[in-house]
Amino acid sequence: MKKISVSYQGVRGAYSERAALEFFGRQTTMTPCEDFDTVFRNVRARKTAFGVLPVENSLTGSIHKNFDLLMSHNVWICGEVKLRVSHSLLALPGTTRQAVRKILSHPQALGQCEGYLKKLQKAEAVPYFDTAGSARFVAAEGDPSLAAIASTEAGKVYGLKPLATAIEDNPHNFTRFIIICRDESASPRIRRKGRNGKTSVVFALKNIPGALYKALSIFAIRDIDLLKIESRPIHGSPWTYMFYLDLSGWHDDERCARAIQHLREITEYLKVLGSCAQAE
Amino acid sequence: MKKISVSYQGVRGAYSERAALEFFGRQTTMTPCEDFDTVFRNVRARKTAFGVLPVENSLTGSIHKNFDLLMSHNVWICGEVKLRVSHSLLALPGTTRQAVRKILSHPQALGQCEGYLKKLQKAEAVPYFDTAGSARFVAAEGDPSLAAIASTEAGKVYGLKPLATAIEDNPHNFTRFIIICRDESASPRIRRKGRNGKTSVVFALKNIPGALYKALSIFAIRDIDLLKIESRPIHGSPWTYMFYLDLSGWHDDERCARAIQHLREITEYLKVLGSCAQAE
Repeated sequence: MKKISVSYQGVRGAYSERAALEFFGRQTTMTPCEDFDTVFRNVRARKTAFGVLPVENSLTGSIHKNFDLLMSHNVWICGEVKLRVSHSLLALPGTTRQAVRKILSHPQALGQCEGYLKKLQKAEAVPYFDTAGSARFVAAEGDPSLAAIASTEAGKVYGLKPLATAIEDNPHNFTRFIIICRDESASPRIRRKGRNGKTSVVFALKNIPGALYKALSIFAIRDIDLLKIESRPIHGSPWTYMFYLDLSGWHDDERCARAIQHLREITEYLKVLGSCAQAE
Repeated sequence: MKKISVSYQGVRGAYSERAALEFFGRQTTMTPCEDFDTVFRNVRARKTAFGVLPVENSLTGSIHKNFDLLMSHNVWICGEVKLRVSHSLLALPGTTRQAVRKILSHPQALGQCEGYLKKLQKAEAVPYFDTAGSARFVAAEGDPSLAAIASTEAGKVYGLKPLATAIEDNPHNFTRFIIICRDESASPRIRRKGRNGKTSVVFALKNIPGALYKALSIFAIRDIDLLKIESRPIHGSPWTYMFYLDLSGWHDDERCARAIQHLREITEYLKVLGSCAQAE
């Protein structure tokens, strides 16, 4: 059986890698990438068939960079995964919590563990580029006064031991990832049967009164549920916005297709970003 | 004349301090704060009459932390300022661009100067907690191989010299700040005369189909313009959202007041965050 090739941002042990494993199972070859942009480029250039990208966290909100990149790259959203995020404090084997002086992680992970970190008075929080990367750094340094915040799985990859697990302040901590492929024809159709669809679109409104209300009415009059709405600034036009909308339904279902056609009539710009089965 | 007291997040020379000076003029006593939360607490505890907070950048979007804090603290938005953000590369007097090896700044500022930084191949970008703070750090270190990215004004505060100015990739770089006071009665009414108002509300929808559409229809049927809509996750309820809305009009104008009353009828939760003159 041919393995499925997947790009993700981060180093081995990253939450994105776990999301990819959850979606595709073990039969995958993983390509870690330095940044989100490279994930998009690998998919466009057919270096890997798929890419996995975090788009939203249930506590901190949208990962805006990836919304912006969805605008500038031609790819197709063909899946989504919701992953429970649970952080561990990781250090070299033999290190104790009392010996830790610096705790490295992504600023967002440090923020999510603020309550726990306040109790460790002798240790200072130090921002690092990503969570799994901070684990790799601590392992490479070999310094027992350092610790990282990342998943227990990331700790295993780099030979670190959890000094504490589930240290996040809020247990309702989930990240939603999207799976992208090159275009609609590369979308794995088999996943579609009997599942509720979700369609993602991005549009810019014409500068007319009540424009957003009119755009949303297109879905209301057809009883199509809106799952999410997100506004992003348009570069070069301060205080004007692009709107990202997730709708309930597959993009080529008749009702949904007609709504999108209708939306095209009243928007300045419209792009269908993809259509996939809704994650539970 | 009694001076106006203002809290802001950051150190001396911060963009927030410049926004405060622009709004209030020079007759102010400034209280720099370590974090946004302290700005809110100072205003609530009457330590300062006003607070200044960045809420949105025209390139990168909303500063979500401050939207979340507006929910959890009882304050009143009584003003707004839009500030053009222009970054300089700052170093100790006598340093040349060729001698710089590390460039410190807030990750957002580093991102905004990505194009410029790529050309400086010998220098590495290093994330720091804030822009003006990175200037202060470079001055305190006294190391000629270090540079900071912040405003030229911040450089002056700490005795640094600009090696280059206007190094941001996109000149359409503005940040919008809000001015907060303790409650509506503390709002400076004099600024109101003849100015267009803007009212900010936050609400949670009832879980009914087309709920957002219905909420927006309240303003559409009254010809009240929506200036901005922003969704934020509700902690503890993954994939449900609070909506922040900026409306055109003063909150106590009859048409606007009726619309807010109407909105209250169909929402689970509603809070009026304030009303102020629209910045040009």
